[in-house]
Amino acid sequence: MELEFLGTGAGTPAKQRNVTSIALKLLAERNEVWLFDCGEATQHQILSTAIRPRKITKIFITHLHGDHLFGLPGLLSSRSFQGGQTPLTIYGPEGVQNFVRTALQVSETHLSYPLSFVTVHKGLMFEDSTFKVYADELDHRIKSYGYRVEEAAHPGVLLVDKLQADQIAAGPVYAQLKAGKVVQLPDGRVVDGHDYITAAQPGRIVTILGDTRQTPAATSLAQDANVLVHESTFGRGEAKLARQYYHSTNIQAAKVAKNAGVHQLLLTHISARYVGKKVSELARDAQAVFPNSRVVADFDVIDIPFK
Amino acid sequence: MELEFLGTGAGTPAKQRNVTSIALKLLAERNEVWLFDCGEATQHQILSTAIRPRKITKIFITHLHGDHLFGLPGLLSSRSFQGGQTPLTIYGPEGVQNFVRTALQVSETHLSYPLSFVTVHKGLMFEDSTFKVYADELDHRIKSYGYRVEEAAHPGVLLVDKLQADQIAAGPVYAQLKAGKVVQLPDGRVVDGHDYITAAQPGRIVTILGDTRQTPAATSLAQDANVLVHESTFGRGEAKLARQYYHSTNIQAAKVAKNAGVHQLLLTHISARYVGKKVSELARDAQAVFPNSRVVADFDVIDIPFK
Ligand SMILES: [Zn+2]
Ligand SMILES: [Zn+2]
Repeated sequence: MELEFLGTGAGTPAKQRNVTSIALKLLAERNEVWLFDCGEATQHQILSTAIRPRKITKIFITHLHGDHLFGLPGLLSSRSFQGGQTPLTIYGPEGVQNFVRTALQVSETHLSYPLSFVTVHKGLMFEDSTFKVYADELDHRIKSYGYRVEEAAHPGVLLVDKLQADQIAAGPVYAQLKAGKVVQLPDGRVVDGHDYITAAQPGRIVTILGDTRQTPAATSLAQDANVLVHESTFGRGEAKLARQYYHSTNIQAAKVAKNAGVHQLLLTHISARYVGKKVSELARDAQAVFPNSRVVADFDVIDIPFK
Repeated sequence: MELEFLGTGAGTPAKQRNVTSIALKLLAERNEVWLFDCGEATQHQILSTAIRPRKITKIFITHLHGDHLFGLPGLLSSRSFQGGQTPLTIYGPEGVQNFVRTALQVSETHLSYPLSFVTVHKGLMFEDSTFKVYADELDHRIKSYGYRVEEAAHPGVLLVDKLQADQIAAGPVYAQLKAGKVVQLPDGRVVDGHDYITAAQPGRIVTILGDTRQTPAATSLAQDANVLVHESTFGRGEAKLARQYYHSTNIQAAKVAKNAGVHQLLLTHISARYVGKKVSELARDAQAVFPNSRVVADFDVIDIPFK
């Protein structure tokens, strides 16, 4: 599980930072990539990575501002042009479907794969045996959402070496022990599966928020997350400006991270006003509130280990 | 008058070539830039040039395939974000307005300048005292147009040195002479304005075609042009493929240039299959038919001198 930042800028593209897109790479977990937002030229950024568009199976849009949205038609078309056949689902606020369908219809683009849309709402948006995705509404000029991706716990692993040392022969009994059952062996011994499996490993949690002012929903979405991705359009001392423009400062983001007890904070959506030393300052000021903070750059890859 | 190629690739963006956009820089002539097509990330390409989005006053769309269209919403938004206030007009096939209006409405983008649309049709599309633009329909899978930009002739310049040598005093008479009139001077001499003005200079003609199969309209649009910009999606020996996919080969483009008597042929819309030596081959094969042929690359700037 890795995050790869495809665009970390705010508002308009700059040479240093493209507009927003974030790839959650779930290659080991499900051989898929999930995209969060898709600003213009996201497909161009992908050309410089190892990501293959056909592996992108879900795209979550946080809000419909152009710098988070306008790359969708091109990416969808290229995924088709390159022969993608697996279904793709787009989650986002109402309006994303109208935009995408209009773009595809006007350009007479016929996709080679099934495309579906799910309108985002507060609560559980997706669930299968290994992942759940929750959403909640944030506070931006336009409807904006945050997403919380929860990995299911990894069950304990059977300690085969220990079983063999204890002369418990392989067979259907192994499955029963792995399930944590108490079993009577043919030789009469009674053994407990819990003695032969490692502890279950809690799943990882990644929270990715759209543009937002300070709002309680940010903290609840981020509760105990391994990684929180939070916008940081403004810097220390600019809380008033941030509020006025419906954005956050680095300090506000760091407070969310601290209050939610996350492991790592990644600051993105960085204004073009911040370059060089000023980016380091953004990071340092956030670290004063929440030490494990980092300002990400385009093409940064962040591994998300188990806690 | 210069052409600057912002994207010279076909279909999908590649690292070497972005999708189509061409800037006709009319800075000396009218302090404006006209754009022809606007594929995704055209605004990103512009970041690497001296072009200022606010100087773009007209955008001509040849056809609505995504690789010629999907950069529009982002460019329009950024032009606004950067404080552009002068009106902008988009010429293109029906549908471009629906696409752009939907993108702006869904993203709640309110432009800082007036935006208007003109549906392209065969014939005169624009005319003022210095420029005319004609359009005609080509032959592509989707409705596709070519544009012919005609500069008005530059009137002759008054030869002030010669007037003074002939002891003709400055005054209202100069305007009459410049207009080519025959005038009687206060000293009784009768002089002809034509003896005191340089020859009028014919205006330049630039023809930019959308994607197309071979079609007579290409030749008539290109008649006597200083520069013809023609797609070259396929190479020598691929005429059948070109026809099948509604595109042209380099050889077909060169024949249009030859038959239309143009001065220079610029080949663009180059497939990603052509790199390195294969690009030189594309050019060489075209030159065998029409010597003044060139395959353009992203960021090539072509000056268009008077003939
Ligand atoms: Zn935004
Ligand atoms: Zn096309």
